[in-house]
Amino acid sequence: MTGAPLAQLRFVDLLAAFRSPSPTPGGGSASALSGAVGASLLAMVAGLPNPRAQGPDEQRRLDAAGATGRSISDQLTGLMDRDSEAYETVVAAFRLPKGSEDEKRARASRIQEAMRGATDAPLEVMRACLDAIQAAAEVAALANPNASSDVQVGLELLMAGVRGARLNVAINLGSIKDPAYVEAAGKQAQQLEAEAERARRAAVALLPASTG
Amino acid sequence: MTGAPLAQLRFVDLLAAFRSPSPTPGGGSASALSGAVGASLLAMVAGLPNPRAQGPDEQRRLDAAGATGRSISDQLTGLMDRDSEAYETVVAAFRLPKGSEDEKRARASRIQEAMRGATDAPLEVMRACLDAIQAAAEVAALANPNASSDVQVGLELLMAGVRGARLNVAINLGSIKDPAYVEAAGKQAQQLEAEAERARRAAVALLPASTG
Repeated sequence: MTGAPLAQLRFVDLLAAFRSPSPTPGGGSASALSGAVGASLLAMVAGLPNPRAQGPDEQRRLDAAGATGRSISDQLTGLMDRDSEAYETVVAAFRLPKGSEDEKRARASRIQEAMRGATDAPLEVMRACLDAIQAAAEVAALANPNASSDVQVGLELLMAGVRGARLNVAINLGSIKDPAYVEAAGKQAQQLEAEAERARRAAVALLPASTG
Repeated sequence: MTGAPLAQLRFVDLLAAFRSPSPTPGGGSASALSGAVGASLLAMVAGLPNPRAQGPDEQRRLDAAGATGRSISDQLTGLMDRDSEAYETVVAAFRLPKGSEDEKRARASRIQEAMRGATDAPLEVMRACLDAIQAAAEVAALANPNASSDVQVGLELLMAGVRGARLNVAINLGSIKDPAYVEAAGKQAQQLEAEAERARRAAVALLPASTG
């Protein structure tokens, strides 16, 4: 990943970048992308006319949920790049010289540092997706009732973002040698996914004529 | 949705289109998009160097799976537009005049026809995603073993496409008055999702050091 942000590419060119047999952008960026589209759908539904919201207080809550969807979508758009950059830092660390003992030690330390960066990025994606899924409850309860399927599709894409990012956390933790970090990050990823699934169910339960 | 295909937009502008409080592009196009990215990830993994494939026969099978991923990704990219157009046809039918009895009958018939089109599009998305998920078995078994998480993220996005499209099938079937069509399409959607979930599990089971 060099040059312009991924989101500046035309979608066909972004797809071509995912298809090309170079490792970035890969699954981490794709997870962030999925969440960004999901959060955008929630923002769309929050802005539709004829909401269920009654009175200025409910309308404000709905507007706030829509604003959250937009800002998280922006955040996830940035995380598409951050994930690819973090992975390229890992690749660069592996390419460091390993002739002398000093070089070997420096390289091993840079690899570990880079692996943490490549773990923190998908953890950030998981957190952002969770925030959007939590905001979906207000959208489900207060927005135009005819857009229930759009809310649910948004939730599906956000959950794919959560699960995809967790797979990236897991694969990177496999290469990290600090057991305390591995345990803490693994536990955090597990909790984030469980919380996201709970929040998804809670939002779906608030939809009118729930299908879920 | 007017003018250029959605995939010709820069990704930021595509996100803005999803966010805007106009109903298209909506959840149907987002489901197709999710599948398109998932299929592209499978194509990427199939093309990585150092595959597990041994000999020309296995390499051919892996290449074929990669080609399937690319072609299904293209198909789903086209379905992003088709879904939005089908929905706009529904909106146009609802706007037809309903002054005379003849106009009412013509309008009702056009609405029903448009609703079928808006149901067929997500059914097509479900089928395309299923085809890619089935091709993922070869990728899982034969591609570079270090890209397991990319295969799984691809599968997550394809399953989000399947489930998202099914939600769109369901919502449209609610407005179709032909019980035979409703039953057949509902059953087909259910079977496609069940088959997709089976195929996903089968592919994951073929991954080296499977995480689940």
